[in-house]
Amino acid sequence: MKSHRRELWMELPSRRGFVNITPEIARTVAESGIRDGLCLINAMHITASVFINDDEGGLHLDYEIWLEQLAPHEPISQYKHNLTGEDNADAHLKRQIMGREVVVAVTDGRLDLGPWEQVFYGEFDGRRRKRVLIKIIGE
Amino acid sequence: MKSHRRELWMELPSRRGFVNITPEIARTVAESGIRDGLCLINAMHITASVFINDDEGGLHLDYEIWLEQLAPHEPISQYKHNLTGEDNADAHLKRQIMGREVVVAVTDGRLDLGPWEQVFYGEFDGRRRKRVLIKIIGE
Amino acid sequence: MKSHRRELWMELPSRRGFVNITPEIARTVAESGIRDGLCLINAMHITASVFINDDEGGLHLDYEIWLEQLAPHEPISQYKHNLTGEDNADAHLKRQIMGREVVVAVTDGRLDLGPWEQVFYGEFDGRRRKRVLIKIIGE
Repeated sequence: MKSHRRELWMELPSRRGFVNITPEIARTVAESGIRDGLCLINAMHITASVFINDDEGGLHLDYEIWLEQLAPHEPISQYKHNLTGEDNADAHLKRQIMGREVVVAVTDGRLDLGPWEQVFYGEFDGRRRKRVLIKIIGE
Repeated sequence: MKSHRRELWMELPSRRGFVNITPEIARTVAESGIRDGLCLINAMHITASVFINDDEGGLHLDYEIWLEQLAPHEPISQYKHNLTGEDNADAHLKRQIMGREVVVAVTDGRLDLGPWEQVFYGEFDGRRRKRVLIKIIGE
Repeated sequence: MKSHRRELWMELPSRRGFVNITPEIARTVAESGIRDGLCLINAMHITASVFINDDEGGLHLDYEIWLEQLAPHEPISQYKHNLTGEDNADAHLKRQIMGREVVVAVTDGRLDLGPWEQVFYGEFDGRRRKRVLIKIIGE
């Protein structure tokens, strides 16, 4: 069994946003030399997500609006977590909807994705440096 | 390390629905000859889910009603994604709640599930052919 | 390839609650002797979750309030599932938001977690014994 590990650093200029990280992950799989296995991709921070969906700008706006409805950022005082001096309680909630991680099969040395599947980093409390972990195991 | 890969084709006659795919996955694990490892099962399409819950018809109706409350199909014009000519923005949202994938342990050559755990395909934009990927690695 | 399996038994005295199980999982990884691989941690019951977030009491109260808003326990009669004699339909819904499982990388013999990542058991229908499965594969 082989394994390969890489961290991606992310720093978004805005509080929230989505970044397509599929090319970076595909490159990491190629580097690893692993032909068959599983690839875990996870946010290493608890106010961010890694998820798979469509690379379509309108949909990303829909996610932004929908997540604000389900877990609004304001008023900040509605959340107990923000009594700690943080203002990011909503980000911890939004991230549970969108998920921490994805596991993608590796087949014939490539990410085994469906036709429209793209891997995204979802940021809900940006303007700071954060990491994504890529861990591949297989042969 | 061994690996095994299989695709299941799904085609639901309705827009939304849930299908218990546990028997197909159990058969695939048996075919693989893998005794100990991990089994990834994921929707290859971004308006469908694979998730684990109870095989109880009342609960499935509850999921249907609840998901329509959280991310209603209509009015279609409320979603930017539908400006592309699609009418399935709600399906992309519902799938984030229900999830893309599950990872199940394989132990003694079998799916290592709890007493009531069953694996479902969740369709949110049906009436077309879609795939589920099963990838097993182990020994 | 090596594999290691362990079950954790949980029994919460209340209907809902969160328990930090990171120390138990870290100990299990150490016991396994696996230096590099993947660690699956999943609830074996369909009204409970395993998820990763912050060990902060205020945030856990926020989750409790938020999940009750998204999928209220009462009135019990609002859910078809409860016609079976159960009163836990809401727990099946809440668990979909919080998730069934996490997959964590194992690197240098340890859980490869970000600075604030902690693994929690989330109970939504407690006062009974339930299990969490830990399955580690690697080398």
